[in-house]
Amino acid sequence: MLPPLVLRSARAQLRACSPTFQSQTRLWSQIASRRSIAARQPFIGKAVAVASLGAAAAVTFSMMSNQGSSLTECEDVSQVNQMTKVSSKPDVSMLDPNILDDERKPMRKRMETYVKLLQRRLVDMIEAEENAGRDSHEPKHFTVETWTRKQGGEGTSCVIQDGEVIEKGGINVSVVYGNLPPSAIRQMSADHDGLIERIGYKVEGPDAQVDGLPFFATGISVVIHPKNPMSPTSHFNYRYFELMHPEKLKDGSPNPNYHEEPVAWWFGGGADLTPMYLFPDDAKHFHRVLKDAADSQDPAFYVAWKKWCDKYFWLTHRGESRGIGGVFFDDLTLPMWNQRRTTFIPLMDGTNQANQVLVSSKQHNKESLFRAVRAMGDAFIPAYLPLVHKHKNDPFNADNLEWQRLRRGRYVEFNLVYDRGTKFGLMTPGARIESILMSLPLVARWEYMEGTTGTARESSTAAHINDEENRKKYSEDEIKAREAIQDVLEHPRAWI
Amino acid sequence: MLPPLVLRSARAQLRACSPTFQSQTRLWSQIASRRSIAARQPFIGKAVAVASLGAAAAVTFSMMSNQGSSLTECEDVSQVNQMTKVSSKPDVSMLDPNILDDERKPMRKRMETYVKLLQRRLVDMIEAEENAGRDSHEPKHFTVETWTRKQGGEGTSCVIQDGEVIEKGGINVSVVYGNLPPSAIRQMSADHDGLIERIGYKVEGPDAQVDGLPFFATGISVVIHPKNPMSPTSHFNYRYFELMHPEKLKDGSPNPNYHEEPVAWWFGGGADLTPMYLFPDDAKHFHRVLKDAADSQDPAFYVAWKKWCDKYFWLTHRGESRGIGGVFFDDLTLPMWNQRRTTFIPLMDGTNQANQVLVSSKQHNKESLFRAVRAMGDAFIPAYLPLVHKHKNDPFNADNLEWQRLRRGRYVEFNLVYDRGTKFGLMTPGARIESILMSLPLVARWEYMEGTTGTARESSTAAHINDEENRKKYSEDEIKAREAIQDVLEHPRAWI
Repeated sequence: MLPPLVLRSARAQLRACSPTFQSQTRLWSQIASRRSIAARQPFIGKAVAVASLGAAAAVTFSMMSNQGSSLTECEDVSQVNQMTKVSSKPDVSMLDPNILDDERKPMRKRMETYVKLLQRRLVDMIEAEENAGRDSHEPKHFTVETWTRKQGGEGTSCVIQDGEVIEKGGINVSVVYGNLPPSAIRQMSADHDGLIERIGYKVEGPDAQVDGLPFFATGISVVIHPKNPMSPTSHFNYRYFELMHPEKLKDGSPNPNYHEEPVAWWFGGGADLTPMYLFPDDAKHFHRVLKDAADSQDPAFYVAWKKWCDKYFWLTHRGESRGIGGVFFDDLTLPMWNQRRTTFIPLMDGTNQANQVLVSSKQHNKESLFRAVRAMGDAFIPAYLPLVHKHKNDPFNADNLEWQRLRRGRYVEFNLVYDRGTKFGLMTPGARIESILMSLPLVARWEYMEGTTGTARESSTAAHINDEENRKKYSEDEIKAREAIQDVLEHPRAWI
Repeated sequence: MLPPLVLRSARAQLRACSPTFQSQTRLWSQIASRRSIAARQPFIGKAVAVASLGAAAAVTFSMMSNQGSSLTECEDVSQVNQMTKVSSKPDVSMLDPNILDDERKPMRKRMETYVKLLQRRLVDMIEAEENAGRDSHEPKHFTVETWTRKQGGEGTSCVIQDGEVIEKGGINVSVVYGNLPPSAIRQMSADHDGLIERIGYKVEGPDAQVDGLPFFATGISVVIHPKNPMSPTSHFNYRYFELMHPEKLKDGSPNPNYHEEPVAWWFGGGADLTPMYLFPDDAKHFHRVLKDAADSQDPAFYVAWKKWCDKYFWLTHRGESRGIGGVFFDDLTLPMWNQRRTTFIPLMDGTNQANQVLVSSKQHNKESLFRAVRAMGDAFIPAYLPLVHKHKNDPFNADNLEWQRLRRGRYVEFNLVYDRGTKFGLMTPGARIESILMSLPLVARWEYMEGTTGTARESSTAAHINDEENRKKYSEDEIKAREAIQDVLEHPRAWI
C-alpha cells in the first residue's frame, strides 16, 4: 500500500497549494469573520488545526490563509496524518486524572486530559450499550485510530458503524498547536477588541518583532446516530483555545516581553438533540440535565446557551431547526486586558454582529469556567445515554425508517451547508476528511415535495395534494407523529 | 390548508428580512464574486431569480443583496410561488416552434421557447422509457407544477420519483425578469470589463440617472438518477441572460439613451455524466455525441468545455470528480464594447482568476452561439437516454445498490458544498427549496473509512485494513469494479 499512499500525499499536497484552493481557503476564512455569530470568533493561522479537530470541534477555529506562509503550510500538509495507529480503545494510561483539579497545572494539559478521559468513558459506555443485548453475536467495537501531526499535535478518531444500537457514531479528540501568523492576528484583533495594541510589542508590519504568536487548541467532538428511529441523534463538542507569547523574537533573540500567561484563551462548546419522533419527556430530560449542570455553575448560563443553540442549529432554507436544541456557546473567557472588576460572559446570539454581554451575578475566574465546561461535558452522558437505552428496542416499521432517513437528510443539509466546523474542515488542505465527515449518517433520504415538512407545504398551494397522498400512504398515527416533531422543529420551544 | 400557508409565507418573509439572513445573502454573493471560476460571472439583483431557476440553472446567476432595496425584496419574496398549478404535462400549446429560427424575433422569447419545448420533449421521452416495460402497473408520471412570480416570471418543475427506471428525476424550466439595482451593476462591472463606463449614462451614486437596469433570465435544469446501479446519473442545464436599458429614468422621464439592443447578454450551460460503475463505452458514447454536437458549431468548443467541466465538477475535499465529465461553459457571448474584429470565446477554467481567452477560428454571432446552445441541448437526449435504456434491466445485487448509495452521497456532497446554483438558491430569501433540492438523490449513504474511495485510503496508513475488510465483504469483481470507477474519478480522462 505504501507507494499509492505516497502518491496520494503528493497529490493532496499539490491540491493544497493550487491557487484555486488557496483562494477558497481565504474565502472560508472571510465567511468565518463575517457570518453572524462568528463575529467574536478567534482566528488561527494553521488551517490544519481546524480539520484535525473533526467536524464539530472545528467550530471554534476558523482560519486565516496567510499568503506569505503558504509554502510552510504546504510543507505542513504533507506531514499530516502520516502516522496512524489502530488500537481497540483510546489509550488513557499515560493520563493523570488528578491534574483536572490541580490549579497549578497548565490549563492546556488539564483540558487535554479531560477530553481524552471523557472520550474513553464515552467509548466504554456506548460499547456497553451496544453490546448489552447481544447473545450470540460477536461484540461490536469502535474503530479507533490515532494520528499525529509532525508539526505539533495528535488526535484519536473513534467510530462505530452498522451496530445494532448505534447505526453510526463518532467520538473525536485532538490536540493541535502551531504558529499564528501576523495577518491572522490582525484578523483576530477585530474580534478581540484592541488585542494587538495591548500585546506590548509589534506583531505585524515590516517592523514586526515576532513571526506570529503560538497557539494551542484541544477539543472533543461527538455525533451519535442510533439505529432505532425512536432513538434521537445527538451531538456535542467542547474545546479550549490559547494564544501565547513567543519565547523568541523574529531575529532569534529572547522576547523581552515573554511571560507564561497566555495572550488570550477561551472555551467553547455545546450539546444538542435531534429526535426523529417527538417524545416530550426525552426533550425535557435532555434539557433538564444540561440545565442542572449549567445552573450548578452559573444560573445565567443555560438561559443564554439554550437561545444560542436554537439560533446556531437553524436551517434557514428549511425554516426549521436541526433538532430540539440544547446548549451552545463560544468565547467563554474573562476580559483579559480590561481593568473593570465586573466579570462578564460575552454572548453572541447570532442575531446581531455586536456583542451582547450577558451580565452574570457570579464572579468567574478561569477555574470556574473550566469547571463549567467539565460540568457540561460530564452532563452529556446522563442527558443522552438514557434516551438511547430507553428506545433501543422500541418497535418500528418501514414508515418510521423512511422518516428517520428523511430527517437524516436534513442533518446532512445542516452539516454540509451551515456547520462552520465541517465547512472549514472540507476547505482545509490536508484535512482528515474521514474524521470530519464521520458526523454524516449512514443513510439519508430526500423526497421531492414530501408531504409533512415545511418547505413542501410552503412552496405550493398544491400542498393539499401531498396531504392527500400522505393520508393514502401512512397511518393517521404516523402522520400525527411526523407533524408533531415538525412543528417543534419549526417553532423551537422552551422545554423547562 | 390556506391559513397555515399564509402563516408560513409571513414567516418566510420575516426570515428573509432578518439581519442574519441579509448578511448571509451578502456573503454568498461575495463568494460568487471571488471564487475561482465565478470571476467572469454576471450578477443580478433579484435574488429570487436564482432560486426559481432551480439548482443547476441557477449556476448562471449569483446575486447582490442591495441593502437599500431590502424592503422591496421582502415584498417580492411574499409574492413568490403564490400561484402554483398542477398539470399532467408541461403546457407547450401556446409556443411557436417557428420562432427558433426566426432571427427577427427577440432572443429571450426564442430561448424561452427552446427550453420549454426541450422540457416537454424530455418529459415525454423519460416517461416513455419509464413506462415501456410496465405490463400490469399504472403508468408512472412526472409531478408537474407551474408557478408564477408576481413581480415577473414563471417556471415549471417536473419531478418523477420512485419509478421502476428512474429513482428520482427533475426537469425544471424558468423565465424570470426584474430590475438589477445599481450596486449590483457595479459588482457586475468587475466582471464585464468597463461595463459601467460604457453604458453611456450614470447608473450608480447619488446622481445616478436610473434606478438600475432590467434583466431577463431563462433556462432549463435537469438531473436524472436512474434506479439501476449500472445506469448513470446525468445532469444538464442551459440558460440565457440579458441586461437591458431601462425605458425610463429615475425621475420617470424617458431615457434618452434607451435602445432595444441589450447592454449585455450571454449563454451558459453544460451536461455531465455520473456513473456508479464504469462502462467505458458509455462514457465514450456520451462524450462522442456531445463532441459531435459541439464540433458541428465550432471545433474549439469541445476542447475548452470538456476541460472546464472536469474543473467545475471537482470535489476538492475528496480529490475526485463528481463523474466522468462532459461539457461546461459560461459567459458565452460576443465582445459588446470591444472594437476588435476578432471574435473570441471567453473561457474560465477555474485555475486562474484571469480570463483565458480561447481564440476560435470561427466568426461567431449571436445566431451562431444560439445554434450552438441548441445543438448541445438537443444532444443531451441521444447522449444520455440510450444509456438509461441499455442498463435499465441490468441485473444487480445488494452490494451494487450499496455502492450506488455511497456514490450518491458524493453527489450530495458536491451539490450542497460546491454547486454554486444550489448554494445561491439555499441562501436566497423566498426560494422554492423543493425545486432547488430536486437534484438530490432519493437515498444516499456515508460509510466511515469505506475501503475503496480515495479519502479513506489517503487518511490512514491503516488503509490496508480496510482493503482486507473489503476483501472479506465483497467479491473480487465488485472490488475491481469499484476501483475502476474510482480511478477514473480521481484521474479525469480524455474519452475521445
